[in-house]
Amino acid sequence: MKILITGGGGFLGQKLAAALSANPMIAGKPVTSLTLADLAAPAPMDAPFRVECVAADIGDAAAVNQLFTDAPDVIYHLAAVVSGAAEADFDLGMRVNLGGTMNILEAARQAGNVPIMVFASSVAAHGGEAPEVVTDGVELNPQSSYGTQKVIGEKLLQDYSRKGFVDGRGVRLPTVTIRPGVANAAASSFMSSIFRDTMQGESANCPVTRDFKVWHSAPRTIIANLLLAAEVPAEAFGFNRCINLPGRTDTIGDMIEAMTSVIGPEAESRITWQGDPAVEAVVGGWRAEFVPEKALGMGFIADRSFEDTVRWFVEDDIVNK
Amino acid sequence: MKILITGGGGFLGQKLAAALSANPMIAGKPVTSLTLADLAAPAPMDAPFRVECVAADIGDAAAVNQLFTDAPDVIYHLAAVVSGAAEADFDLGMRVNLGGTMNILEAARQAGNVPIMVFASSVAAHGGEAPEVVTDGVELNPQSSYGTQKVIGEKLLQDYSRKGFVDGRGVRLPTVTIRPGVANAAASSFMSSIFRDTMQGESANCPVTRDFKVWHSAPRTIIANLLLAAEVPAEAFGFNRCINLPGRTDTIGDMIEAMTSVIGPEAESRITWQGDPAVEAVVGGWRAEFVPEKALGMGFIADRSFEDTVRWFVEDDIVNK
Repeated sequence: MKILITGGGGFLGQKLAAALSANPMIAGKPVTSLTLADLAAPAPMDAPFRVECVAADIGDAAAVNQLFTDAPDVIYHLAAVVSGAAEADFDLGMRVNLGGTMNILEAARQAGNVPIMVFASSVAAHGGEAPEVVTDGVELNPQSSYGTQKVIGEKLLQDYSRKGFVDGRGVRLPTVTIRPGVANAAASSFMSSIFRDTMQGESANCPVTRDFKVWHSAPRTIIANLLLAAEVPAEAFGFNRCINLPGRTDTIGDMIEAMTSVIGPEAESRITWQGDPAVEAVVGGWRAEFVPEKALGMGFIADRSFEDTVRWFVEDDIVNK
Repeated sequence: MKILITGGGGFLGQKLAAALSANPMIAGKPVTSLTLADLAAPAPMDAPFRVECVAADIGDAAAVNQLFTDAPDVIYHLAAVVSGAAEADFDLGMRVNLGGTMNILEAARQAGNVPIMVFASSVAAHGGEAPEVVTDGVELNPQSSYGTQKVIGEKLLQDYSRKGFVDGRGVRLPTVTIRPGVANAAASSFMSSIFRDTMQGESANCPVTRDFKVWHSAPRTIIANLLLAAEVPAEAFGFNRCINLPGRTDTIGDMIEAMTSVIGPEAESRITWQGDPAVEAVVGGWRAEFVPEKALGMGFIADRSFEDTVRWFVEDDIVNK
């Protein structure tokens, strides 16, 4: 199986590549090659299969077509301009998040081999007039340009699948916490930094109050679900190829307590509490409580505790500074 | 108020233009000019304001920008490749229904005057895993490329409105019955032709059975609702700028009986009953029962009977052959 990962230089792309390298099978077949594409070419990696690391702007149709000269069997479309950046620069978000997804769908269609395409959608698809507790089947009501662009990607993936152009699987990711690396322009960036940065010895600001609820999932769990998304039979999705992934609902306060219970009180003491109305306006529009029955029935999983998330961060990602 | 109607040569565009000519006010202000744009330039019309009839392919961004050189205050975006045609020619539907809507939204944004934009969406937005009775707030589950493209137009309209680029109002039209003119490539074409053509002395085929339910609205009612859509205050929409318009649910059999009760049995005798699985596959995926509470609360209206629809067709549209 030839795999293509867009956003292959991002932390999810890198973790997914590492998981495929450790267990080079997908949908019951061996992985024979992997292309990691990102704006800047991802760093080379060792793997039991050929790995190509490519610089490609998915907003450029010609660059995307290049990625399909040797047509992939499985596409992980993870590349996106994050929520805060897509809100600040509308044209950039439209070009990459909408135009880029259209370019990839069209290249996949033209390839003619009906590839499996896993599309990372987002919790940001929900909000507005959606009910406080999001069950499957409520109207998608994004409150941001990022969420809108993700929803449109879902609808296109759905129609390209219905037409038999791709075998699409859209998964709405909860907020991925604890995200490794450095803070980014995602409005949800603080949901990782108040844990990651403080455990790594730095301060981090929390722009919302302790009782703010987050719908979240650990990177390990997201990777397991992304792998499963390519492996479940298409029929398991039924008509609708896009689903809410499982996650956990916890308050920021409960998550901080969990961190403290695992690694002691020092990290928590490095959190500052400065409100930020701009951040709150975006993340406050997201939903924090979900009943993702369809995904659970298909075998997708959630974390059992935020303590697990903290332990996994220490095992997998912590950078001692 | 300067008005632009895309699809201005279509029957709804023409009826809307006539209604504005008869009562040249919109949103409490006088209509000062009207541009009717369509693939072929619409025929000139008399009106108490300046009317410009323009040939423009909305799939062509430059042609759309031309329509905005004198920025309109109100845009009625009615132009679309109909359902059957968008299903048969995927690229054409994407270019006109998605690309065209994107071109218009972008031209409206660049104009900078935050125009009112009424977007004709469709009952085809619903289907699939949507419940049999569609209430407000269920996930949009289009079963056709046309429906998908309309839903994407809604999501863009919503985000362009949220960003303050346009003052968007998306209305999901029930099947418009009895549509004047000639049969077209819409999968729902028969829902008009079995009444229109038979009343005009010709035969027409019904590809579904008498118990097939239709969610429908008469042209007069659609025009009243399109006018209202530009006039209700933006706040009345709340967050979500796209709504299910009211309509009526009747079986084909009941509609035929209503026709016969108004004009006698001759027309009915001209209906042939040849099943068509391709048509049934598309229209069978649409929903026929709705509870459009939000639209009713905002003052949008439905027909009181299909007998009214038949009488209005005879008064407004019948062509004696």
